[in-house]
Parts: sequence; C-alpha cells; structure tokens
Amino acid sequence: IVKREITRIVSRGTVTDDSLLDPAASNYLAALITDGDAQQVGLAWVDLSTGAFQAAALPVRDVVDQLARIAPTEIVVSDEQRAELPAEWLTGRQSTSRPAWAFNQQQAAERLAQHFGTQRLDGFGFDHESATDRLSLAAAGAVLEYLTETQKADLSHIASLVPLRQAESLEIDAATWRSLEVTRTLRDGSREGTLLGVLDRTVTPMGARRLGSWLAHPLVDAEKIDERLDAVAELVEHPQLTSAVRDVLKGIYDIQRLAARVTTGRAGPRDLSFVGRTLAALPALKAKLTGRASKLLAAIEEQVDLCPELRSKLEAMLEEACPLLAREGGFIRPGADSRLDELRELMSGGKQWMANYQTAEIERTGIPSMKVGFNKVFGYYLEVTHAHRDKVPAEYIRKQTLKNAERFITPELKEYEEKVLSAEERVQDLEMQLFTELRELTLRHVPRLLSTAECLADLDALASLAEVARARDYVRPEIADAPVLEIEAGRHPVVEATEAAGTFVPNDTVCGGVAPSTRAADESQPTAASPQILLITGPNMAGKSTYIRQTALIVLMAQIGSFVPARKARIGVADRLFARVGASDELARGQSTFMVEMTEAARILNTASERSLVVLDEIGRGTSTYDGLSLAWSIVEYLHHQIGCRTLFATHYHELTELADQLPGVANRNVMVREHFGKIVFLHQIVEGSADRSYGIHVAQLAGVPRAVSERAEEILAELEQSGHRLDTPHAE
Amino acid sequence: IVKREITRIVSRGTVTDDSLLDPAASNYLAALITDGDAQQVGLAWVDLSTGAFQAAALPVRDVVDQLARIAPTEIVVSDEQRAELPAEWLTGRQSTSRPAWAFNQQQAAERLAQHFGTQRLDGFGFDHESATDRLSLAAAGAVLEYLTETQKADLSHIASLVPLRQAESLEIDAATWRSLEVTRTLRDGSREGTLLGVLDRTVTPMGARRLGSWLAHPLVDAEKIDERLDAVAELVEHPQLTSAVRDVLKGIYDIQRLAARVTTGRAGPRDLSFVGRTLAALPALKAKLTGRASKLLAAIEEQVDLCPELRSKLEAMLEEACPLLAREGGFIRPGADSRLDELRELMSGGKQWMANYQTAEIERTGIPSMKVGFNKVFGYYLEVTHAHRDKVPAEYIRKQTLKNAERFITPELKEYEEKVLSAEERVQDLEMQLFTELRELTLRHVPRLLSTAECLADLDALASLAEVARARDYVRPEIADAPVLEIEAGRHPVVEATEAAGTFVPNDTVCGGVAPSTRAADESQPTAASPQILLITGPNMAGKSTYIRQTALIVLMAQIGSFVPARKARIGVADRLFARVGASDELARGQSTFMVEMTEAARILNTASERSLVVLDEIGRGTSTYDGLSLAWSIVEYLHHQIGCRTLFATHYHELTELADQLPGVANRNVMVREHFGKIVFLHQIVEGSADRSYGIHVAQLAGVPRAVSERAEEILAELEQSGHRLDTPHAE
Repeated sequence: IVKREITRIVSRGTVTDDSLLDPAASNYLAALITDGDAQQVGLAWVDLSTGAFQAAALPVRDVVDQLARIAPTEIVVSDEQRAELPAEWLTGRQSTSRPAWAFNQQQAAERLAQHFGTQRLDGFGFDHESATDRLSLAAAGAVLEYLTETQKADLSHIASLVPLRQAESLEIDAATWRSLEVTRTLRDGSREGTLLGVLDRTVTPMGARRLGSWLAHPLVDAEKIDERLDAVAELVEHPQLTSAVRDVLKGIYDIQRLAARVTTGRAGPRDLSFVGRTLAALPALKAKLTGRASKLLAAIEEQVDLCPELRSKLEAMLEEACPLLAREGGFIRPGADSRLDELRELMSGGKQWMANYQTAEIERTGIPSMKVGFNKVFGYYLEVTHAHRDKVPAEYIRKQTLKNAERFITPELKEYEEKVLSAEERVQDLEMQLFTELRELTLRHVPRLLSTAECLADLDALASLAEVARARDYVRPEIADAPVLEIEAGRHPVVEATEAAGTFVPNDTVCGGVAPSTRAADESQPTAASPQILLITGPNMAGKSTYIRQTALIVLMAQIGSFVPARKARIGVADRLFARVGASDELARGQSTFMVEMTEAARILNTASERSLVVLDEIGRGTSTYDGLSLAWSIVEYLHHQIGCRTLFATHYHELTELADQLPGVANRNVMVREHFGKIVFLHQIVEGSADRSYGIHVAQLAGVPRAVSERAEEILAELEQSGHRLDTPHAE
Repeated sequence: IVKREITRIVSRGTVTDDSLLDPAASNYLAALITDGDAQQVGLAWVDLSTGAFQAAALPVRDVVDQLARIAPTEIVVSDEQRAELPAEWLTGRQSTSRPAWAFNQQQAAERLAQHFGTQRLDGFGFDHESATDRLSLAAAGAVLEYLTETQKADLSHIASLVPLRQAESLEIDAATWRSLEVTRTLRDGSREGTLLGVLDRTVTPMGARRLGSWLAHPLVDAEKIDERLDAVAELVEHPQLTSAVRDVLKGIYDIQRLAARVTTGRAGPRDLSFVGRTLAALPALKAKLTGRASKLLAAIEEQVDLCPELRSKLEAMLEEACPLLAREGGFIRPGADSRLDELRELMSGGKQWMANYQTAEIERTGIPSMKVGFNKVFGYYLEVTHAHRDKVPAEYIRKQTLKNAERFITPELKEYEEKVLSAEERVQDLEMQLFTELRELTLRHVPRLLSTAECLADLDALASLAEVARARDYVRPEIADAPVLEIEAGRHPVVEATEAAGTFVPNDTVCGGVAPSTRAADESQPTAASPQILLITGPNMAGKSTYIRQTALIVLMAQIGSFVPARKARIGVADRLFARVGASDELARGQSTFMVEMTEAARILNTASERSLVVLDEIGRGTSTYDGLSLAWSIVEYLHHQIGCRTLFATHYHELTELADQLPGVANRNVMVREHFGKIVFLHQIVEGSADRSYGIHVAQLAGVPRAVSERAEEILAELEQSGHRLDTPHAE
C-alpha cells in the first residue's frame, strides 16, 4: 500500500511546470488588501518560478493600472473584502479568497521576517512606522502564507522582497498601456507587433523577463536612466564585445527557474547539469567585461559569481546528456565514483553473460530462434518456438506454454539473474544518493546563483537594447530634467520595423519647455519658445495617429534607458504618460463610447502634472458636433491654463485650430497632402499650420463606397461649403 | 527492444483528447482552395472529435465571414497557393501546407468516394458537373487526405459530407458576427454575455454544439423556420414534457465523441459503458415523444434507434464503474464469463493464501513485524527487521540485506507465487480479449449511433429554446415572406438577462414593408405605411445602441427558430444581416478608424439587397464634421433610393433628421429625456421625432471631468448656439 498525501496544490499563479509557462514572461501570483477607508491598497506579487517578490502600496485609483502592467494570473484577496472589491480588479484572473488573518499586519510582518531570517524588514527598505509600508507588507505576508499553505516545499529561493515605490517609476495607466501596445497587441494580445517585440533581442529567458519588467516600470530618475544609457552606449560602441557577450549568454540556462526547481525539490539531473553548464560559461563572460567604463557593466563584471566549487563538482560528476528524472539513472559519469563503477561492471558483465549464454545454447541445441527474455513472473527465461520443441534439452525446466512457444529456465540462468538484478538495484540506489548530494550542494549555492542571475538578466537586456539600437539605427537620447521634448526625425519603432527599410517618413516633435509656474523666472531658456500643446489636423490615413503614438513610445523608450528611433532627441523626464489613441477595449463592455472617452479625459485632467506627457486622438467624437467641439475646446484650454503639460492633440475639429491664435502655448501642425490632377497623395510629413480639409470623401472612395454615394457626398459638401458657413469659433478665456 | 512508430500526429485541428477540448464547442479542421481566377473558394471543415464534415463553395469576399462563424482552429492550404492567400484568412489559426496534388479535383473526388464507399458523391447532394461543387469537393478531399496521412486510424465515423449552400442560410459577415456578440464577447471572447450564453440551456454537449451551429447558420426558408418554431412551441406548451425530456437527456453521454473514439481505436471500457448507459436511457425518451404533433418532434421519435442488442450486451458485460483503460482491468462483471470467474477465484485464493501465510509465520516465529512483500528481483519475500534477526527460522533462504531489514524466501512462498502471478496474467489477457469483442460490436453500431446522436442534438437544442422561451417570457414570432419588421415591446435578450427582472425598458420597432421594386403594385398592403429607414437620434448613454442591437438579435433569433423577447413580433425573413455597432476590433490593426468604417459601409452598400436588414451606429465619425455629414447623408439616400432595405441608423448628426421631411421612407425616432430642475433623466424610451440635444457635456460631467472644464464647455456651446448657426442642411436629390 502506497501512502498518498496531497503534496502540492497547483493554481494558475503557482504553476512552476516548464511546459505550462512561457519562458520569456513572468507568471505572477499577487495578493491585495485595502486599508480601513479603502483609500490605499497593499499589493504584493511573486513569480514562484523564479522567486522574484515585490510589494507596493498604492492609492485605490491606481490599482487597475498597476495590475495591467504586472498582469498577475492569480490574485489572493481577503474573504472579508472580496465582495467589496471593484470587479475590474479581478476580471480575467483567477481569484482566491483567504481568511482575513492571513492579511493581519502584525502576523504578516512576523511571517516575512521569519521567512527571510531577519529581525525586521527595514533591510529591504520597508519602514514599519509607515502605514502604507505596513499595508504592502500585509499583502506580501498573505502571499507567503498562501504559498506556504499550498506548496509544502522549501521557498528559500524567494530570497528578498523588493519595495516598488510609485514615485520611482513612470506612471502609465492601463488604457495607455494597452493603447500603446507596449507588450501585447490590441488585436490579438500577441507579443509580435508590440514595442517589446521590437526591443526584445535577448537571448535568455531571464533577459526577456527583465526587459518586460523595465517596460512595465520605466525610470524617472535622470541619473539612473543615464546609467543604463551609458551601458547601452558602451555596448553599441563595441559591437564585437556585444556580440561576444551575447554568444556567451546564448549558452546560459534559465538559472532563476532552475534555482526555484532546486529549492522546491523538483530539480532532476538535467537541471543540475544546466546549472553546471551555465557556471562553465561565466569565466568567459567575466573576461569580456573586464575593464568596462560604464558603471553598470563594471558592476555586473564584479558581481557575477563563478561558484567554482559547485561548477567543478557538477562537471566532474554529471554526464554530458542527463535524463530529466533521477530514477531514469545513468547520469553519473564513469570514473566519478569508484563504487558505482564497480557495480556497473558487474551489471554489464551479467548482461554480457546472458548474451553469451544465448549464443552458446543456440549452438549447443541447434535451435536458431532461441532467445533470452524477461518477465516479472519468473524472471529471465529461454524461449523456444514449438517448431523446435523436440530439440529442447532435458535439463531445461519448463515454466510456461504460450500459443507459439514455450519458456524454460535453467540453474545457470537463475544464478546470473540474481547477480544482474541486484546489481541493477544497487546502481539505482547509489546514483540516487549521489544525485541527492549534488542537489544539496546546489541548494546551498542558490543565493549566489540568484544574485548572478540578476546580473545576467540585466546584461542580456542591456545587450538587447544595444543590438536593436545598432540594427535599427537608434540614437542616444539626451535626458533633461526640464519638461522638454525635442525629437528630430523621429520614427515609430514598431511601424518602421514592419515597413520596407527607408520607407518610413520621419518627423520632428518639438514641444514643452518651461512649466507655466516657473515660466517667468526662466524666460531666458531657449526651450521656452517651443509650444506646449500641438494641435494636429489633417486628413485621415495620413499618419496622425502614428505620429502621436511614436512620440509617446520614444519617451517611454528613453525612460527605460533605450536608444530611440530618431536622428537626435532631447527628452525631459515625464512623471506620467497618458495616451488615448485608437479603439479602447473598454468599448466592448456595453458602456457608451462617449462616456468611456470622457471618463478617460477626466482621469487625465484630474491627475496630469506639468511634467506629464499627454497624447490624445480625436477627443469629443461620439456626441453631437457642438457638444464635442465645446468639450474639446475647453479641454485644450484647461491643459493650457491649469496643467501646462506637454500635449499632442490630434483632431478633426478644424475649428479648434483657431486656438493657436488665441493661446500662446498652442501651435498648429498638419499632415502634408498634395493634390495632383485630382489625385490625392499623402506625404506623411508633419508641417506647421492647420489643415482645412479632411479628404473624408476621398477615403470613402478608396474604401470602395459606390461611386454614386461619393459623388453625391461631394455635392452635399459643396453645398455646405458654398452656404458659407464655418462654425463661428468662440473666444478663448 | 520496443518498436516505436509514429502512430498519430496531433495538431490543433486534429486534437481529440477530451481534456484538451471544450465539450460544448466544435473543434474544426478546415481546408480551402481557390479556383484559377481566385474568384471562388472551396472550403471544407470537419470536427474529428465527432465526425461532422461539411463543404461549401463561396465567393472570395465571403470567406472571412464564413471562417469567423466556423472558427476553425487549423486550416490546410495548398503550398502553391499559400503565399497568395489573404493574411486575414489565416491569422490567429494554425495553418498547414499540403502539396497541391492533395487538392486535385479528380483525385479528391475519388478519395472521398472511396472513403464513403460510394460511386459518386451525388447522394450527398454534390453535382460533379458543377464547377463550384467540384471546388468544394477538392477542399473536402484535402481534409480527408490530411487526416489519413496524420491520423493512421479508422476514420469511418466521418460518415457523410454535408454541402452548405450559401443561399440556404442567413448571411452574417464577420464584423456583424463580432459586433452582435453572438457566440463570443468582444471584450474577452467569453461565452458568458453573448446571445449563445442566454439561449444555451442544453444539457448535453451535442445539444450545445448544435445550438452553436444553428446560430452560425440561421435559416432563410420560412417553412423550415416554422417547422422549428412548431417544435419549440409544442415544447413550450407542454412544460412537463420538456422537463421530462431534459431529465432523460441529462443522463446521456456525448455519443458523437464516444463514437469517434470507438472508430479511431481510442475507446476504453469506460467509454463503452457510457454508450451502454446512453442506450439504456433512450426507451424512456421515445416513450415521452410518442404522439407528438410537430413534424420535427415526431421525426425525432421515429429516428431514435434503440440498438437493443448492443445495449443488452454492454449491460451484461460491463461493471457499473469502469476504468478509463482496458489494461487497468477489473471491468468485466462477475458472472459475465465463466472462464474469467474461475481465474479470478484462483488469483484471489493465492493472495488470500499469502495473507494467511504471513499470519501463520508471525505466530510460528514470534516476529510481529514480519510481512510479505514483492519486488521484481526475486518476487514475493518475507521481510524481517534486524531487531528480530535472531528469531529467523533456519529454513528461510536469505536473498537480500537492507539497512534495517533482511529479506527471505521459502519454498512454499515460491510455489504459491507462481500460481498467483500466472493467474493474474491470464485474467488480464482474457479481459482484454472480451473488451476487444465489445469494442468491435460497438464499432459495427457506429452508423446507427451517429444518426441517433443527430436526433438527440436537435432535441436538446429545441428543448433549450423552449426552456429559455418560458423562463424569459419570449413569444413565437410570426414569420413573413415580405420584408417587414413589426416588433412590439422588444427587449435586448442579453442586456435584459443581466438586469434585475422588470427593469429593462422595452421598445417597439416597426419598419420595412413592401420592397421599392414592388411598391406600386402592393400599395394596398398595410405594412407599406411603415418607414423603411429609422433615423435614431438622442443623447449618449440613453440606449440607442442597445435598441438597434436588440432589433438585429431578435431577427437572428427568429431565423434559427427561437421565440423572441417581445410582446409580439412579425418578422420578414432577411437574406443578409449587417450590424455595425460599437468598436470594431479591426481598429487595432493600425488602419485608420475612418478607413475601416468606410470599408465596412462600402461592403454593405455593395452587397445588401432589399431583403436585408442593416443596423448602423454613427457612420461618419473620425473625419471632419462636413465630410462626415456629407457621407452619412449620401449613404442614407443610397439606402433609400437604391437598396430599399430595412435600416436602423443611429446618429449624432442632428442635421440628418431633416431627411425625414425630404424622403418618404425615412422617419425620425429619438430617445426620451426628461430635464427636471437641471437634472437629466434618461427614460430609455424610443419615441417618434428627432432630438435636438445630445447632452454631451452632461455626460462629461458625470464622467468626472473637472467642473471648470464642463462649465467652460457650456459657455462655448451657448456661444455657438447664440451665434445662431445650425449647419444649413442640403436638399435631398
């Protein structure tokens, strides 16, 4: 009778089976808890497959955005709060209720301290005096409680808890995240066709995950951005170094997930041999990185830990090709253990004896088809077909009669049988014992392996950015503290990558400068001259959306430390990025289009600061012309007077372009169109000034609307225009 | 040495493993081939898990629509054509290239005829003289070739090929299909929140799949629709019958997938026992259906085949609870086979002897912890811990020494060992043989089982429609041949289901009547008075989109033979249904919003007939006001003059409402709003006449736009309105 216990409970957030995980993506389990007033939320998330563990406290309104970027597959919540949580926090994810005590702040802090073997959590950067930090620790404690309860395994690969401070990263709300297609396309949620798809040339899963996490949390500290840019620049300038580094990285395994397997007791011989191979690759890497100028590369060189004793042990003991599971056996190298060598000889000697015996008996008896076989009823036997029944020697002992053959044993056979079978069993036991020793040695090295993994992930991500920068001819952006934006010949990184080389039309973006509040004092600054708000008009399909999206993407890229697709760029660090371009997937929820649009506009107007970047496409559609125009007009005024942030505003309300005459910070841009013998050519070139036509009927014609319809529409348009009416534009406040 | 061959190649379209399939959905493998001019396409699709196999020939422009409704997971294409096929045909699906000869028309027809054991395929309704039929057969032949090549299994459960004729079903293009959320929501592709989600109260997977296929291919033949409605009506009128039928169906298994498992040799004992239980349930069903008035129910009663000899054999042989796999054994009932009974007694006798022997030896030697064990090295043994080493009798033969114990054998033990082990082996062999006989008997019944499955699927789907109709208070629509639409107090089936009972505000829809071409002759018909085009204006969030969607859904429901959510309905059969409401997922492909909208408008204007139903929401957004208005105006004129189809057109261009004065077939409707002390209340009531305000600023305020913004917008609006300008409306042609 085999005792069966529940050993592990697997849920979507605690999957660690490689075949169920995307190597290039993190799989997060999150927990969240709101405070008494439901104003603040403690949020923690762990990737059990790698041990990465983070926590944050956020205002309630930012939770959806943060969840969109982390994309946890499972969320643990308190059963007391579950019913009151906004549905959108949990939609599309597995949610798991745990008793409220699992989130108790006091117990959570103690549980974490015990797990990490520390007195308090100050060492990780948490402050027990801070109410918000206690909230994030409560969530982290609940994560740990849930894992302990369900995993019944060593969790020591979860070696630290990293606080995520909102103010330390560029805030990107959920709608912007989707609208810019940073990591998933709107159309089908795939990675291809996204910014990550273009930037990701990493060669290890660790690097791919790291790049994804940089995109989810871009930097806001100009110094840190420049540190990354320094490292990328050094790699760009030394292509041979980069390619050598990447070649070494290609031979490296996912030691974050391997370490997790070792810790949780799921590692097999093959996993350990992968750890060994990774360690074997490191000296070459260290050598390449010696003497690097940039701070990050130098730090990586210094922190990569060769773990020489582990490496030499793994190399000495393990075969080149190891099986997945220890019980498959045969993975300890010959010569590695003398006891094992002896037993193996005995085993193979016995098998060889069997083969010889078969040959000898065939010769002696003249039964050519005789063969040695094995079954569990009576072990090794000799099988003779009925055709040769009469040639069977008398000393054979008959054990079984089959349809076509009979099976016999002999005393010699039985004698060797026992030697073979017991040697086989002892070989298995010994290999298993040696394997256990190796696994325990590796387990003791897990903390050092994990800190090396951090370096390798960073290095791979940096090298990937350098590789893309060279391949696509990106430039290093100058990072400024003032809210400027000066992009010369910028391109859309994703669209450019899908078009034939050289066909994408680059455009400048110059806007922002000194914030209104400090404008008077800094009048001397040259950037003060550039407009704060660009109103972009022009026909459909001419590239307005592409232009405003590319501007947002370039800023985002700069803030993760990437080079950017432009001839030259000077970018003032943004604190928040808002983009509303193209369809929003909120529309499908049955809400009115216009309500969704206004809710998003409200969000921007209420939270943007003078350091933010706002990119808006056609605000005010979906209601009557007058209503929409009035609102768009008043929104532009508000952005100009009250917020003063850099803004790109694409619109079909040509009436809005009058604002440029009325407000000093507003300028018109439009997309060039050439009409040539009635044919309309879009030049995709953004120029100064406003457009006076949208060419909508031309587009309808291209789309295949019956000629009768487009011709009649032209007539109606002419009538409308002849009647001399333009909407009278209101006066700015 | 075990010989390993590739036995099956599994791809997404040929998965048959239950754990990978949604029981309620079909999993189609499709093949497609275009003709020489790429004008027509042959398309065939099979569900390998059930054997359902269909083929059609379509014009190229309809392929995307058809694929959207079939939703195949894999498409087989000719390697010669692959590069030229439109990308949208293959996006999001696995596509597999096969050599061009697999699609050869001559060979394909021969391959199909051979598979079905027929001379030609005329019997299935295909005409070898027809070029389009030859094209659909080429695709079907390629499906069969691919299955033969990859499955290496009997495919005889694919028992017929059913032609799908376009003219025989309501055409629904891909955009309409998505926009109406018939089977998947736009938001997350789930089934919940769709029309199917509301209508599906089936109790078998066969019924669920059938209902899905009815929705994908609604009827256009009024007589066939009425046949289904007759059956549904009979079930609605006899709730006890319906509930009895559904109770029986609940005990029925998915015999389509079971038959497929039997045919392809993957069925185990449990599968066969499920076939038996299903057959056992049928007599009760037949009894319930006896003497039914409606043609369909009577036909089902007649065609359900009880297969009595198969049923009694399965019942006699199989245990109540059977294992999944035959090699697990123990599934043949005691008493079913006397040889088996004898062997089993021998086996259990031996085991009993072992237990007695252990007890006896414990007593005799005084070693309380002694136990009998088994390993493959030396079979059954007695294990004694070292603590009792000194009490071991001399006649015990030591075979192995472990860390804590020693293992011994005795001659008595060995003698019984052989009896037990060889009886065990023979029991296994015999059970396997009996199982094979049962499986072959079932295999011979597969054609009869499949035709019964068809009846059960229909019955379950009809009963589901009846159940929903009663539960939700739907009425039987009157089906008319003339293109009328008279819905009294219609409701949105999905929105209604999510709201509290009685809160949904019902609305009438009356439009259409006599087609323009016959208008003169039929002037006496009362329906001629109703307008052809309804222009719907009114504020945001008041329910315009819900209203026009519900009208389209009610027509769709009527044409599958379902009752509809209304007080009364008279519905003229539509030949095509076009709906453009809410966001289109095409937007995300980086195309200009407006271009997508115009492409879809062009599609409608070019293909709608006077029998179609067109439902449009806010055509003309996304370009300048004048362009958009001109196009919307001219589109309405075209629908009125040239097409004459029933149309619901929701718009924010209040200027368009002037069309009602100018064109006899156009009427205005708007959504009632009450202003009460400055508070605005939406009544969701559609009334005659046009709206003059959109309340956009009110919505913006509700959405949380800063008060400064909405107040300023009001000022601007007042200025615009005071300046006295309305756009001058053009004159109708």
